[in-house]
This record gives sequence, C-alpha cells and structure tokens, in this order.
Amino acid sequence: MAKKWTQLWLQYKPRKDCGNKGYFENVWICGFSAEHKIVVNLLKEVEKAAAGMLDVHPDFKEWSADETAHTGMLLCKSEVSHIGAEGYEISEKAGLLTVSAREEKGLLYGVFHVLRQVALEQSVSDCYLCINPDNPLRMYNHWDNMDGSIERGYSGESFFFANNEVIVDERIEDYARLVASVGINAVVINNVNVKDNATWLITDRYFKDVAKMAEIFEGYGIKMFLCLNFAAPMELGGPDSADPLDPEVRRWWEKKMEEVFEAIPNLGGFLVKADSEGRPGPFSYGRTQADGANMLADIIKDYGGIIIWRCFVYNCTQDWRDYKTDRARAGYDNFIQMDGDYHDNVILQIKNGPMDFQIREPISPLLGGLVKTNQMLEVQIAQEYTGHQIDVCYLIPMFKEILDFRTYCAKEDDTVADIISGRTFGNKNCGVAAVCNTGNDVNWTGNDLAAANFYGFARLAFQTSLTAEEIAEEWIRMTISCEQEVIDTLMGILLPSREIYENYTSPLGIGWMVVPHEHYGCSVDGYEYSRWGTYHRADHLGLGVDRTYNGTGFVGQYHEPNVSMYNAIGTCPEELLLFFHHVPYTYQLKSGKSLIQHIYDSHFEGVEQVEEMILAWESLDGKIDADVHRTVSERFQRQLLNAKEWRDQVNSYFYRKSGIPDEKGRKIY
Amino acid sequence: MAKKWTQLWLQYKPRKDCGNKGYFENVWICGFSAEHKIVVNLLKEVEKAAAGMLDVHPDFKEWSADETAHTGMLLCKSEVSHIGAEGYEISEKAGLLTVSAREEKGLLYGVFHVLRQVALEQSVSDCYLCINPDNPLRMYNHWDNMDGSIERGYSGESFFFANNEVIVDERIEDYARLVASVGINAVVINNVNVKDNATWLITDRYFKDVAKMAEIFEGYGIKMFLCLNFAAPMELGGPDSADPLDPEVRRWWEKKMEEVFEAIPNLGGFLVKADSEGRPGPFSYGRTQADGANMLADIIKDYGGIIIWRCFVYNCTQDWRDYKTDRARAGYDNFIQMDGDYHDNVILQIKNGPMDFQIREPISPLLGGLVKTNQMLEVQIAQEYTGHQIDVCYLIPMFKEILDFRTYCAKEDDTVADIISGRTFGNKNCGVAAVCNTGNDVNWTGNDLAAANFYGFARLAFQTSLTAEEIAEEWIRMTISCEQEVIDTLMGILLPSREIYENYTSPLGIGWMVVPHEHYGCSVDGYEYSRWGTYHRADHLGLGVDRTYNGTGFVGQYHEPNVSMYNAIGTCPEELLLFFHHVPYTYQLKSGKSLIQHIYDSHFEGVEQVEEMILAWESLDGKIDADVHRTVSERFQRQLLNAKEWRDQVNSYFYRKSGIPDEKGRKIY
Repeated sequence: MAKKWTQLWLQYKPRKDCGNKGYFENVWICGFSAEHKIVVNLLKEVEKAAAGMLDVHPDFKEWSADETAHTGMLLCKSEVSHIGAEGYEISEKAGLLTVSAREEKGLLYGVFHVLRQVALEQSVSDCYLCINPDNPLRMYNHWDNMDGSIERGYSGESFFFANNEVIVDERIEDYARLVASVGINAVVINNVNVKDNATWLITDRYFKDVAKMAEIFEGYGIKMFLCLNFAAPMELGGPDSADPLDPEVRRWWEKKMEEVFEAIPNLGGFLVKADSEGRPGPFSYGRTQADGANMLADIIKDYGGIIIWRCFVYNCTQDWRDYKTDRARAGYDNFIQMDGDYHDNVILQIKNGPMDFQIREPISPLLGGLVKTNQMLEVQIAQEYTGHQIDVCYLIPMFKEILDFRTYCAKEDDTVADIISGRTFGNKNCGVAAVCNTGNDVNWTGNDLAAANFYGFARLAFQTSLTAEEIAEEWIRMTISCEQEVIDTLMGILLPSREIYENYTSPLGIGWMVVPHEHYGCSVDGYEYSRWGTYHRADHLGLGVDRTYNGTGFVGQYHEPNVSMYNAIGTCPEELLLFFHHVPYTYQLKSGKSLIQHIYDSHFEGVEQVEEMILAWESLDGKIDADVHRTVSERFQRQLLNAKEWRDQVNSYFYRKSGIPDEKGRKIY
Repeated sequence: MAKKWTQLWLQYKPRKDCGNKGYFENVWICGFSAEHKIVVNLLKEVEKAAAGMLDVHPDFKEWSADETAHTGMLLCKSEVSHIGAEGYEISEKAGLLTVSAREEKGLLYGVFHVLRQVALEQSVSDCYLCINPDNPLRMYNHWDNMDGSIERGYSGESFFFANNEVIVDERIEDYARLVASVGINAVVINNVNVKDNATWLITDRYFKDVAKMAEIFEGYGIKMFLCLNFAAPMELGGPDSADPLDPEVRRWWEKKMEEVFEAIPNLGGFLVKADSEGRPGPFSYGRTQADGANMLADIIKDYGGIIIWRCFVYNCTQDWRDYKTDRARAGYDNFIQMDGDYHDNVILQIKNGPMDFQIREPISPLLGGLVKTNQMLEVQIAQEYTGHQIDVCYLIPMFKEILDFRTYCAKEDDTVADIISGRTFGNKNCGVAAVCNTGNDVNWTGNDLAAANFYGFARLAFQTSLTAEEIAEEWIRMTISCEQEVIDTLMGILLPSREIYENYTSPLGIGWMVVPHEHYGCSVDGYEYSRWGTYHRADHLGLGVDRTYNGTGFVGQYHEPNVSMYNAIGTCPEELLLFFHHVPYTYQLKSGKSLIQHIYDSHFEGVEQVEEMILAWESLDGKIDADVHRTVSERFQRQLLNAKEWRDQVNSYFYRKSGIPDEKGRKIY
C-alpha cells in the first residue's frame, strides 16, 4: 500500500537501546490528570515511540508516594521556580527518569525531549537539564488558500484546505504531533493575503470545522491563529467601511469577535497583513497602523486574544527612475513613529531583512529600532527566493546570524534574539514566526532535505543557543540515519548549502535578479525597470545601491556603531557591500580580487560546489532510504541546471556590461 | 437602452444623397434566384442601407427584358469572361445602375461596393468598373478558445464560444455581414492551439451548432474552417498514435472526415499548427510535414476541402548561449526541402516575417523561396507585439510593404502579392490570412481605432492595389465621419502610427525587448537569456544579431540580389540594420547620427509623437461620437505611459551599457 505521507522525524524506527529501554517499562504520572487532552496525547506518543524504537510496551500508572524503589519514568508536576510555564526539567536517579513540568505543555515538550534522545541513540540516563523555551511565541505561518493552493508553496497543495472547505483529518493530527514535538506553540493556517472564501473563515460557514481543527491543535499545546481580511466588515455584509475609528465598524467587529470566540474559544488571535501589496488597511481611511491594530486588539483582549500585525508595508508602485525612494526604508519609516502606541496585546511581526527574504540581507532596522513595542521576528523557510525546495538551502545558519546580530538598542541583551525573546524589554508577547514550507506532498516539503528547515526552525525557536550544526545533526539522525558516514556526508551538504546558493545567485547582498513573480531562476534585469523597488543599478562602470548618507540614507535607521559600519565602504561587511554601496567593477575587495572578478569567481565556484554536493549525495546511494535518495537526486539535477543558468546569465550580463574579461579566461557568453 | 454591440462601418447613418437615391427606388433582379440565401441576405442589406442612409425603401422586382426605360439598380447574372468567379462589374447608363456578377458571391461584393460608395458620400453614377479580388482566399483566423478566452485577444471574450459551447446568435450574423462586406470569404473560428474541448469540435458533441454557424456564414459567401488537433485520433478514443503513415490512423481520419463533412457539408477545411510550440505533429513519428499535411488533404479532397498548414515551426527550447542556431532560419529550413511534395489542396501558411509579428521584420524567405507549393501569407491584426489595441498602430502601411516586397523568385510577378495571389505560379489555392483582433467588446476591437485594421486588412486582401491612405480614408468616412477636418486629423493619426510605435519600442528591426509572455511593455533583457531564440546580443560595444554569412547565414535563404543587399552593412536597409548585423554603438548611420544617438533620438521622438497624436485626438472632441472619443482618449493615456516607459527603459539600458551620453543631454536614468 502506498504511504499517504511520511512521519519525518517521528518515524520511531528501531533504535539501539543505549540503556534507555528500562525507563519505558513503567511510566508513572504524578500531579497531572491522565484525562487531560495533552496528557492523553503524550502517553499515546510514548507508547508508540517505545514500541517502535525499543520494542517495549509501557505500563502507565498513577504515582503513589508511599511505594518505594520505583524505576522507569516519572512524569511529574512541579512548581519549582526555575521551570517556566512551558519549560521542563529532566533528571535521573537510581533508575528513575523524572520529567518535571509546571504545565501539561511543558510536560509534552519534556517527553518529546526524552523520545528525541532515544531516537538519537543517546542515553537518557545522561540527561540532567532544565529547559525553558527562549521565545514565548514559536509560530508557523502557512500561506494556504482555501482553494487548496499555497502561495509560495513548493510541496503540493494545502492539507488544511481543499475546494474551499476546511480539512480535518488524520494528517492534521500528524502535523500537530510533528510541530509540537519540536516546540511550536502557535500556527496560522491561512494565507496572509486573505481573499475570497478565506474572508468567510470568521463566519458560521466555517466555524464548526475550524473549531475542530483548533481542538486537535489544543491537544498538542498549539494555539490556532487566523489571518484576517481588514476589509471584512464590507465584504461580510457589515458597514460600508473598514475605518478602524468608525464606531459602526468597531461595533461590527465587537459582535463578530463575540461570535468567533464563542465558536472557537481556544483561538489565539489573528495575523493581519494590512496596507500591503494591495491588501486593504487603515491607511485607506487616513488612520495609522496603530489605530487599526489597537482597535482589533482591544476587542479581543478579554478573550485572551492577540493581534499580530505585519510590518511589510511599502510602496509597491515605485518608479524605477526614482533613486531616492528606497523600499528598504519603508518598514522603519512606516512604523517607527508609532513606537509605544501599540497596545499590549499587539505584536508587530517584522521580516528579518528590510527587503524580502533574499539570500543575504542586513537585519531590518525595525528590530531594535522599536523599543516600546512588542516585536516578533518573521523568517521564511518556504524557499521563495532560496531555491523553491528544488535547490538545497539549509537556512539555519542564516537564522543564527539574524538572531546573533547586535542591534545596539540596549547596553546588554541587544541581539535580535534578546529582543524577540523579551529579554531586552521584559515583554511577554513576542517571539518568532516562520513562513512554512509544507504541503500535501508525501514527504511534506517537496525536497526531503528541506525538512531540515521545517525541523530546524522550530528547534531554534525553542532554544536559540543551539548551533546550526547541532540542529543539522539531530535532524539527520532522527530522519535519515544514525550512521556516522551518512551524518558526515549530509552535514557536508547541508551546512555550506546557503553559501553555495548565494555563490551562484545574486552577489554580495544585492539580491533579486530573479524571474519576476515566480522568483526561481535568473533574470538579472527582471526587476530592474519595475515598480517593486528592487534594483541593482548596474551600469558599465559598476553596480549596487547607494544606501549611505550620500544615497538613500537607509543606513541612518540603525543604531551606532552599525550606522558607521555600514556607511563606510571600508568597514561595511563585504557580503553586504552591494546592498549598501554602488561599487565600481574595479574596486578591490579584501581578498585582493576586483569586484567583477569576484562575481565571476563566485559564480564558477557555486556551480562546482553543486557538482561536489551531487557527488557526495550519490555516495549515499544504498545507504539511505531509496525513495528519498531518488527524489533528492532528481532535485539535485534541477539545482545543477539552475546553478549553471545563474552562473552563465550573471557572468554574461556583467561581462557584456563591463567589457572586463575574466582573468582566468573561462567561458562567458 | 444600452447598445449590445456597434455596427462599425455598417452603421448606415443618414448620408448626403450625391444623386444616389434614385438607384435605390427600384431594384431589379435578373438571372439570380431571389430565393438564394446570399441573394436574400443582400436584398435585406440593400433595404436596410437604403432606408438608413438615404431614407428610401426599394421596390424589388424580377427583371423582364421586354420592359423599357427601367431606372434604378439592376442585379444581373453575367457570363462575360472578364468577370471572375468572385468578381463584379458596375456600370451606369441612363439612370440604370447595373451590378453584374457570375455568382451570387460576386454580386454580394458588388452590392456592398455600391453601398460603400453611398456611405462614402460619393456618387455611384460615376462608377464604371470591374473588380476581381486579387486573392483567392481572404481569411480571418480567430484564436478563440472554447472557454471564451481569446489567445492574444485584446477586445473582451469570444463571440464564437463561451463555457465550452458554440454560440450561434445575432452577433454571428452581424460578424458575417461585416466581414463579407469587405470581401472576406473564409474564417477560422477556433484557436490554432487546439486543446481541451476544441479537440471535440469535430465530434457530434458540437456538430449541430457548428453546422448552424457554417450555414450563417454560407449566406454571406464565407467558408468556415476549423483548426485541428493533429493528435485527435489519440484524444478522441481512436488509435494510440497520430502517425500520418499509420494505416490505422489514416482509417480513423477517413471515418472522422466522413462524419464531419456529412454534418457540415459546406466546411472549407482545416488549419493545422503542428510540431510547433508544444503542439503535436508528424515530426513526433519521424515523418515530414508533407506526410502530415498530405494525409489529411487526400482524405478531404473529395469533399472539396483544403488543408492549410502553418509553417511556424522552430525550436522553442533554444540555448541562449548558442550563437549559431537562429530561429529566423527555422521556417525555411523546415519546409524548403519538401517544396513540390505538398498536394494540390494543401496550402502552407507563412507568417510575414521569419520571427513572429514584430513591428519590423524582413519578409520570410519562404515566401518566394518555395516555388512549387501553394502559399498563403499570414499577418496579424491582433496587436500582440504592436500595442495590444491600447496603443494605436495602423498596420496597413506595413502590410503594403510586405505585399510589395520583391522576392526575385521569378522574372516578373515576383512580389509577395504576386506569389500569394497565384499570379506568379498560376495556382488557385493561395491567398492571405490575418490573425483577427476582435472580441465581444461593444466596439469589437477594444480600441475603436483598431477597427481600421479589421476593415483595412480585408479591403487590402481583396484589392491589393489600394493604398494605405485610401483604405484609411474609406474607413474613417464610413465609421467616424465624412467631415474633412475629422478625416484629415485622423489620417494624421493613423498613417504614421506604426512608425511612431516603432520609434518608442525596439529599434532598427531588432524586435522583442518586450515583457515575456505578455508582449506588452518594455523589458529589454526579457527574452535575452531565454529559450525562445529571440536575442539582441547587446554588450558594452554594440548590439544586433549577425545573420550574414559571417554569422548565422540566414541571409542566404533569400534570392539575389536580396542576399547581397542584406549581407552588406552598407546596403542593408537601415530599418532592418540590427536584424541582420551586430553593429557598434558608434557606427554612423546615413543620417550622420551614431547608432546610439539614433536610439536615443528615436525614443525621445516617439514619445513626442504620441503627445502630438493625443493633442490631435483631443481636437476632435465634440466632432465625433462622444463614446468613441472618450474610449480612445483613455487608451491614448495608456499609450503615452507605455511610450514613456519604453523610452526610458531602452535609453537607460543602452546608456548604462554603452556609457555613451546623449548628445542633447536629455534625462536618461
């Protein structure tokens, strides 16, 4: 029988014991009700995992304190202060492994931690730790449409929606298990571009099914969020306005939210894309973004709801002739003045960079630019600009760079990780979201290797101190193989893959150069004369966008010393050189190479690196699952074609424009 | 009440009499049956036209030779040899205007000629002429799909099809009247890309409605043709092959054609796009294009059917790195060897240029290259690459150039007009087709001024000696106004409009530089690194495609002296310079300007010319129909935006690439 879908890192294949088996013979519960939905689910999970990995069938029992010499695993409620609401502690003593938590959700994470150790073939008797998640909100944003399509989806159709209906089936449960096992606690199920039927998700047309799905999620500690259409009052037969300060509009929303939270009481709240790329919003009524967000937030506050408001607001009808307007400035310019005006249950969700999920961008200056506003980081594991899950691009190293970036917004705790976790400003409504890369493909993510991002983002969101290497190795062991040779080979593929992708695509932070709309494949001038604000400004002498004080002044949006660092060509990190400066082709880089020679060299190198990755992958034939090997091999061939096309187009474009030949005399067209 | 659609040049508005009224009081019929469908229709037309234009209601009577002193109009059958099958003669004597013809169809054209004179406010008593149409087939090709969409349609949806059904309504009759009035005698109703339901047009699923439409057409002397899916046997449940030499496939087609011609006995035949842009064809089976065409032609010969076979066969997955393969060569290379192999009821339909309906191309070397094959010229009035019926582009001057081009395939009668009319080789199955620009918009053609092409192509097809000026003036008088000021102003807009479009778009025959797929708007590099074989090869020193003997050798496909003319940069017509040569920016043109300065100047000039056109058009406000004036004004504003965008993108692109400034110091970005 054909598999309907894989179980990814929850395969529970037989594992070497490593002394873990004993802990699964008796499982004691203390202080938690075995009837609680989350506990029921986690016990099922333990049973399944123990049977699959260690061939043992646990006995579940209530703990009674008078018994002595217990061995096995104890799942124990604990009120000790170092365990946070979603945290857990694991300790071992005399054959008894104790997983302590304050709440069921923490217990769930603790249990999954134990199961992960087993899957990794590591002894849990070594475990002695207390882990509290770093980020309050750890969220997946799905851009799924109700017709079943997925905006920027590269893994088949939606498993949340089909034919304008909500799907509630076994896969939803598996999805919840998968993401909960790595600590995700919030999920947005529909596309931020809310249109057509999706506007009706907040009506009784869909309440029943949405509530069912939310209940499944709740059983795994996951809050469901929905995306809202800001113009919903007008489209759902309410007042003929969406003005957030219009009392009639407000009354309409009050009534609507009453209905919504009555039908879906465990709903987490809403994600809103307003005044962006054609979506309606408060600007249409001369109101501020804060007016819009606060109006909604106030209404849902009593239901415990929060409003997550996206900051992706920019002029998408720019004139390419205009060298002064800079899309990179837009997020900051549109949101900074209202800093402090947003109510406490509003979070601004900020894309990692000021443009749009390019392979290399500086950090958005809003992150840490805002100092009195709840902030959430948005990254994208859907590989919109990073290879469409055809090309391998392990993104965790990029996310680490983002999290580690020092914004200098505070004396201490000034990194992006500090800000979004709440450490910097002491706030609770904050965290990190990723635009997700899943769909109804058998393997969830199209390219099997793209699941490393699906896994890795969540792990990093939970524990930002994990390294990209640790996460990659965990994922490989759990999903592909625990054989050292396989692990080494795959680490060698995953870890440099982002830089390889960067090598054969757009150089030194300039970004774009992609086929318009589709965003896969090269088109150097594809966006150069367009309205999207995404230019490289190449001429016969050089390229790059001058964003210094001499140019668009974007650099001024950062705190010092970042301003000075970016503003001077000599101190600007070279990987971002063309993002901040217009640079002559003959400019000498730190490597001693000219800019143009660097472009040629990195593009030839990128293709060679892909060829090496393919050789490495081919060496795994017979050592890993045959289906996975074949599927990924096919995608690698497409990646190679893509890389060659980028190499030749970029090199030819700049050779034709500059007239400067490659020093090494390689073939340029 | 809102008009459902306009009547274009058959409005029959009140006209100045000019002494014409008397001819419409009595209309005599001699030798033709008043019951014949065409005669019935033409009498209805006379009645309507006479009432509308001259407020007279004709008395229709059988002619009796013994009566004397008849006045009025006599519609008379004649067997004199100088009147051809579709020709007519008009003469006046003593108050009797005689329209003579051999057949009803000729009579229809003669009557429409008379009605046209009335509409033009010219006395028909001056008429003394005999006109035989120049081209045997005068055809419109509609690219209408059965879902109602139109490929490259810029005038709304189809009026032939909607929701996968054939529409037979009053508009079909009006369409037939309109095109018959200007001499069209053949119409293909469905898209050459035959897919989905259109494959089923030759099944009893659609026979009834198709036959009804064909009957309406027949009443106006129009043969209906259909486009065929060469893979129909496989898709309609026949043999699992479409190999033209497979006896089973042949038998399937025999049976199919028997059904088709039984159901639609007056069908003219089929137009086939095979082995082109993904369409199936004989090449898939290692057969020649002649094998495919002849097989079908033989089968339908006994039904009087003909096969029109398109020559638009080229490699649409070319590698842009390949400078030797030349799409311009493909038509000739694919078809020349089989010259003489095509059976007599096969016609090869050849696009005017070797590429694809660009604003400026040389003539396809197949025209006159083939000397033993029926040839038909294909032009496009759907403004795919010439402004989408947003921009005004009167195409008749271009068609005149095409028809007048000397191919040197024969000592005399060597022009394209000679070849396709049958004068050169004495053949009958030949003529001219245009991809049509109509849709179900109220005004038929989106832009009211685009109807000048709809009218003009047909008039030119009938009578190739007409000048572009004559046709424009006729159309203006019949459709817009007979006021001299309006005529002068509109002539001033229409006649230079093709050169104006050329000025602000791609220079000197290079073509393309359009937004891929859409083909409206500028994208200089849009196709430069693509698989479509459409390149400009610009670098920092120059641009153009070397198609001389030093380059792709395309020039060798012409007859001398054309070969030598195109091969040498000094004798190559400058408007085609970049089509045939790769030229340095500093090359001096005959005007004394450098190539780069010509590019700058023509692009600035093009925009100024559009501004002048708009001023001219605005001066007509109040002097012509207000709806027409407003609709066209709106389009002119879009044309101006388009022209400015082209100007700035092309100039900026070449300035950035060449580094050579505009001598006049104008703004380039």
